[in-house]
Amino acid sequence: MIISIHTQATSEERAQLMTLLCRITGSQRPITTTMMTEREVIALDGTIIDAQAQTAINEQSAVDSIHTLKTPYQLASRLFQATSTSITIGTTHDCEPVTIGGTASPVIMSGPCAVESREQLISTARAVKEAGAQVLRGGAFKPRTSPYQFQGLGIEGLHMLSEAREVTGLPVISEVMEPDMVDTVAQHVDILQVGARNMQNYPLLMSVGRHARKLPVLLKRGLSSTIDEWLLAAEYIIAAGNPNVILCERGIRSYDPMTRNVLDLTCIPLLHELTHLPVIADPSHSTGRRELVPVMSRAAIAAEADGLIIETHIDPDRALCDGRQSITPAQLEKIVHETRLLTQLMKGDVRVA
Amino acid sequence: MIISIHTQATSEERAQLMTLLCRITGSQRPITTTMMTEREVIALDGTIIDAQAQTAINEQSAVDSIHTLKTPYQLASRLFQATSTSITIGTTHDCEPVTIGGTASPVIMSGPCAVESREQLISTARAVKEAGAQVLRGGAFKPRTSPYQFQGLGIEGLHMLSEAREVTGLPVISEVMEPDMVDTVAQHVDILQVGARNMQNYPLLMSVGRHARKLPVLLKRGLSSTIDEWLLAAEYIIAAGNPNVILCERGIRSYDPMTRNVLDLTCIPLLHELTHLPVIADPSHSTGRRELVPVMSRAAIAAEADGLIIETHIDPDRALCDGRQSITPAQLEKIVHETRLLTQLMKGDVRVA
Amino acid sequence: MIISIHTQATSEERAQLMTLLCRITGSQRPITTTMMTEREVIALDGTIIDAQAQTAINEQSAVDSIHTLKTPYQLASRLFQATSTSITIGTTHDCEPVTIGGTASPVIMSGPCAVESREQLISTARAVKEAGAQVLRGGAFKPRTSPYQFQGLGIEGLHMLSEAREVTGLPVISEVMEPDMVDTVAQHVDILQVGARNMQNYPLLMSVGRHARKLPVLLKRGLSSTIDEWLLAAEYIIAAGNPNVILCERGIRSYDPMTRNVLDLTCIPLLHELTHLPVIADPSHSTGRRELVPVMSRAAIAAEADGLIIETHIDPDRALCDGRQSITPAQLEKIVHETRLLTQLMKGDVRVA
Amino acid sequence: MIISIHTQATSEERAQLMTLLCRITGSQRPITTTMMTEREVIALDGTIIDAQAQTAINEQSAVDSIHTLKTPYQLASRLFQATSTSITIGTTHDCEPVTIGGTASPVIMSGPCAVESREQLISTARAVKEAGAQVLRGGAFKPRTSPYQFQGLGIEGLHMLSEAREVTGLPVISEVMEPDMVDTVAQHVDILQVGARNMQNYPLLMSVGRHARKLPVLLKRGLSSTIDEWLLAAEYIIAAGNPNVILCERGIRSYDPMTRNVLDLTCIPLLHELTHLPVIADPSHSTGRRELVPVMSRAAIAAEADGLIIETHIDPDRALCDGRQSITPAQLEKIVHETRLLTQLMKGDVRVA
Repeated sequence: MIISIHTQATSEERAQLMTLLCRITGSQRPITTTMMTEREVIALDGTIIDAQAQTAINEQSAVDSIHTLKTPYQLASRLFQATSTSITIGTTHDCEPVTIGGTASPVIMSGPCAVESREQLISTARAVKEAGAQVLRGGAFKPRTSPYQFQGLGIEGLHMLSEAREVTGLPVISEVMEPDMVDTVAQHVDILQVGARNMQNYPLLMSVGRHARKLPVLLKRGLSSTIDEWLLAAEYIIAAGNPNVILCERGIRSYDPMTRNVLDLTCIPLLHELTHLPVIADPSHSTGRRELVPVMSRAAIAAEADGLIIETHIDPDRALCDGRQSITPAQLEKIVHETRLLTQLMKGDVRVA
Repeated sequence: MIISIHTQATSEERAQLMTLLCRITGSQRPITTTMMTEREVIALDGTIIDAQAQTAINEQSAVDSIHTLKTPYQLASRLFQATSTSITIGTTHDCEPVTIGGTASPVIMSGPCAVESREQLISTARAVKEAGAQVLRGGAFKPRTSPYQFQGLGIEGLHMLSEAREVTGLPVISEVMEPDMVDTVAQHVDILQVGARNMQNYPLLMSVGRHARKLPVLLKRGLSSTIDEWLLAAEYIIAAGNPNVILCERGIRSYDPMTRNVLDLTCIPLLHELTHLPVIADPSHSTGRRELVPVMSRAAIAAEADGLIIETHIDPDRALCDGRQSITPAQLEKIVHETRLLTQLMKGDVRVA
Repeated sequence: MIISIHTQATSEERAQLMTLLCRITGSQRPITTTMMTEREVIALDGTIIDAQAQTAINEQSAVDSIHTLKTPYQLASRLFQATSTSITIGTTHDCEPVTIGGTASPVIMSGPCAVESREQLISTARAVKEAGAQVLRGGAFKPRTSPYQFQGLGIEGLHMLSEAREVTGLPVISEVMEPDMVDTVAQHVDILQVGARNMQNYPLLMSVGRHARKLPVLLKRGLSSTIDEWLLAAEYIIAAGNPNVILCERGIRSYDPMTRNVLDLTCIPLLHELTHLPVIADPSHSTGRRELVPVMSRAAIAAEADGLIIETHIDPDRALCDGRQSITPAQLEKIVHETRLLTQLMKGDVRVA
Repeated sequence: MIISIHTQATSEERAQLMTLLCRITGSQRPITTTMMTEREVIALDGTIIDAQAQTAINEQSAVDSIHTLKTPYQLASRLFQATSTSITIGTTHDCEPVTIGGTASPVIMSGPCAVESREQLISTARAVKEAGAQVLRGGAFKPRTSPYQFQGLGIEGLHMLSEAREVTGLPVISEVMEPDMVDTVAQHVDILQVGARNMQNYPLLMSVGRHARKLPVLLKRGLSSTIDEWLLAAEYIIAAGNPNVILCERGIRSYDPMTRNVLDLTCIPLLHELTHLPVIADPSHSTGRRELVPVMSRAAIAAEADGLIIETHIDPDRALCDGRQSITPAQLEKIVHETRLLTQLMKGDVRVA
């Protein structure tokens, strides 16, 4: 059940509502409000609210309306919020904020798969900034299929990311893998990434959802996730209090070993229909082959992606992780350029020479 | 084993070679030469050629070189022929020929899923021509999942397609479903379509491969076909004598019922790397939802498709087949316009307004 | 639309009905009756029968009832025919007939992937008979992914199969790949096999459906076929006049290269719920690894398969085709023995020692 | 890199080795030994050990041998340990211990999907014990696709499970979803379950791997996990110190909505070849349909599963979770009976009546 709160509810009325809700739900889950683009809401587990409780809630003066769920997801749905959510990245640190979603131009995020060393990171950060990227990516905690693979530099890597932001002014995105690490990672990054393997790690989703500063969350699509499962994962984050969710298509598992995954670009216009959340594409993990990254970046923008996240390495052949799919800063620059041109074409701002 | 024939081989030398090959292979398969872009070849089943026979073949003066297969497919491979194959459509009938592949601009093929009546077809044909399409599609023989669904008008439908070509000057594409029907269908169409369900129907592939006039063949990707299997299906057609194969990505089967199939656009740049054959995309069957067709058409062109095949119906909601995924002529016109603009942008011919 | 014919309809009444149906349908499809286990039926394409025609049909005295389709398939459905179809194999040739389906014990079909030579076939046939197999399999026409692979001995191979039947008394199964070859293949075999690649080759399905002697048809599941699509393919055969369809699960395509396909044993009890047709399993093509064949044979029988089709080769390591998944006659003998024991256990006929 | 420790190493020699390893690896990961069936080992991240360090390690008198990895997984591999791992469940609480794996008879685990109430759990526990189950399952923390679905009773549910064990003497299995909850859940259960959605939740895998009492871990296969990825997930647990891993096949995602997942029984004999760990099957989550559970249980045992985990509910139609796939205690009893008979048949201990 979703409760919409009156825009003019007084703090007294709100407190009264909260008291009622605590009494009704017991202490089963913390009650938080989510400040969405069009309204402020409270999401409750409908299974524990009976008809009498529903009436009592509805009578509260702080309550504007209540919505019983007919769709699997609600807060994430375009039917619930027609306005596209646009999210500003990089407001809490001293960097250049970037807006993603809605009418904003596509945002390019780039950097190495893994933070390998201070030098590698800083030089790559400078190079991707130079190439036109607006957000720096870099993995400090790396989920690796094998326990014997390089697992990332951890907290040390996070400090390097903070330093790279200071040097370049680029906001930073990095992955968080466990609920208890959310606060630590959040001190160093501007977007919390939830990886494909963790798309249905519900304690993690709730933890990034409850983050005090509502830091934007990049939610990668699970390896074989349906659109509904993905939007329900986003719903977990929003229902827990954080409306700043960015979806990222990164390819789905298929039967042909020719590419790492199958990039499902059709999901982008489909998601724009179903949800108000921004959607970006990851042409690096989806294809797994660097020579395909430029073309698939262009195709993703043509499919109306709100941004791209691309692995760039100053020396791809020596990368500790995913070098096979990393491009050089020079290639990134061309992608940035093409993205701008194509965006203008899609806005009707070009003329044939 | 592939035999390349000397460009200057005399007819006597060629006859001598043929006699030798007939003797070596018995009458196991007809021996045909394929006139490819860069050379003329004969493809033999390597399993039946021993070392001695190979030496005898190599000594023939009509033989330029022989290639023992190291890759699964050879004639279809970019390694065997570096030049992109470009195919001219509509040379045998009295219509406006169109070139596809290589440096040619993307070709738009459009029309109804099924030929339903003379009126429906002619009016749609006029409308898609008006909208800028260059080839008319229309199913006369329809492979339907259920025996109780509309199976197409058959030969009557082929005659209507011929008439539509006369009226509009558009070359025509239609599906052929069985080896024995190839000649009949070929009398009425300019491209023979082999559907997704028949991608591994080898007697059919060999039949379109042996077609006397080498009519272009549109080979749709099978429902769950790998890239290798698809190129091997193309190899069957080329090895049988017909080098004019156009590949068509139409979506692969996946686990999410949200769209009919998953359009694998990444296969387009990948195929351009692996093969010299033209590749087009079908945004109608892949998505199964008309509202996604315009965006995915644009994305396919951005992914460097050599063309698009799109279902258009003058009254989609009353279509006997696939109305859910058919667009109107007005929507087609916008797609044609966007395709042209985007192609110019990709060639570097646009300026920001 | 399905028309059930009165069991006591006179030949005059039947002729009158046929005349009416020819008039109503035009010559769009031949009208055949199918003699099913519980009744004789005629299947018509419902899209061409209007309400008035339906009334006229219903008034015919030869008509017992008419069924408008509510399910995708009808003749194949357990709802339409509660009695399990049991099929007798080998009635037309001079061999030992075998019954499959219903309460019959599981039938073991075995032999080489491909007929390679007279000696190989006859010695394998003798060995599998010795091991307890009841039907001999052997490919004469082989659908191969590459045009350069061994394509089978063709008609010569069919003659060898006939000879092997004479020598051993085993009925024979072999694949047919094109509509026009059905009669030729049918002269030599006791079961016509439609392979996985041809499951939706509708002209072929209709051709085996119209076969004059209603020779049993083994219909393999397509590579990525749903249960519904598979049963609709069976419906094509039955609707065309041949009710003797045996379904064969042979593994579906998946993402893990570890096995050739994924054997979906769950489909067996599911199919027994949905359809009255017999269902067998192919542990050879599904696993693609000979060491897994004995265990998966046992599991298939435990899942209530009506039979198994297993590739056996007298010298698996020298097989021209699929040797990797072929077992030896000695291994087959153990599988036959285990199948018998397990069948008795499932019937309640065993006692703990 | 894997270090095998001398069986006769003194505590002094061991301490010396540990000091060396701490120095070499820094404090990057805790160093733990794993006491496997055939030897005691230490797993190190090979990427951080150079040749010189390797020599120094090899010279330690506590070291028997060192193994550099050639396969993706090592500790989990049958090549590394030929003896099947057999695990005793229920040794730490006051219940009836059960052995799983190796030559032990298949173990039946059963109970409700979710713990719903004290009464429901205790009565179900009694019923499944009566029916012959040896382990009680019940979810206290439930990973649910939607945030609005019933999420389980949490810690309260764990207390009920403890009580159910006291009442019935059955060891208990329940799911743990986050690293920090491992100790809490471990106080109440005898097997820690890691669910399909968390198969690649590496912090969780390491947490159950480091559990002080090496409580057995049931590791469910991920939704679209390959065999290699699954064994690497097991490797994470063993490398962290806990060799008591039980694998559970629960169906993989596929394209046909007819069943919830596709039960991949072939993976069972394949895993017995590749790994020494016990493997069980879950016919409830894989099929999602209760009528298929008995047949697929039998098929799983025939495929040499070391056990089954089955959802049983005293009133399936009123279950808060997964009622559609839950069977009754009476059905469970039949499955237990059939499992015993079939196991005896597979051991050669039955006689035809």
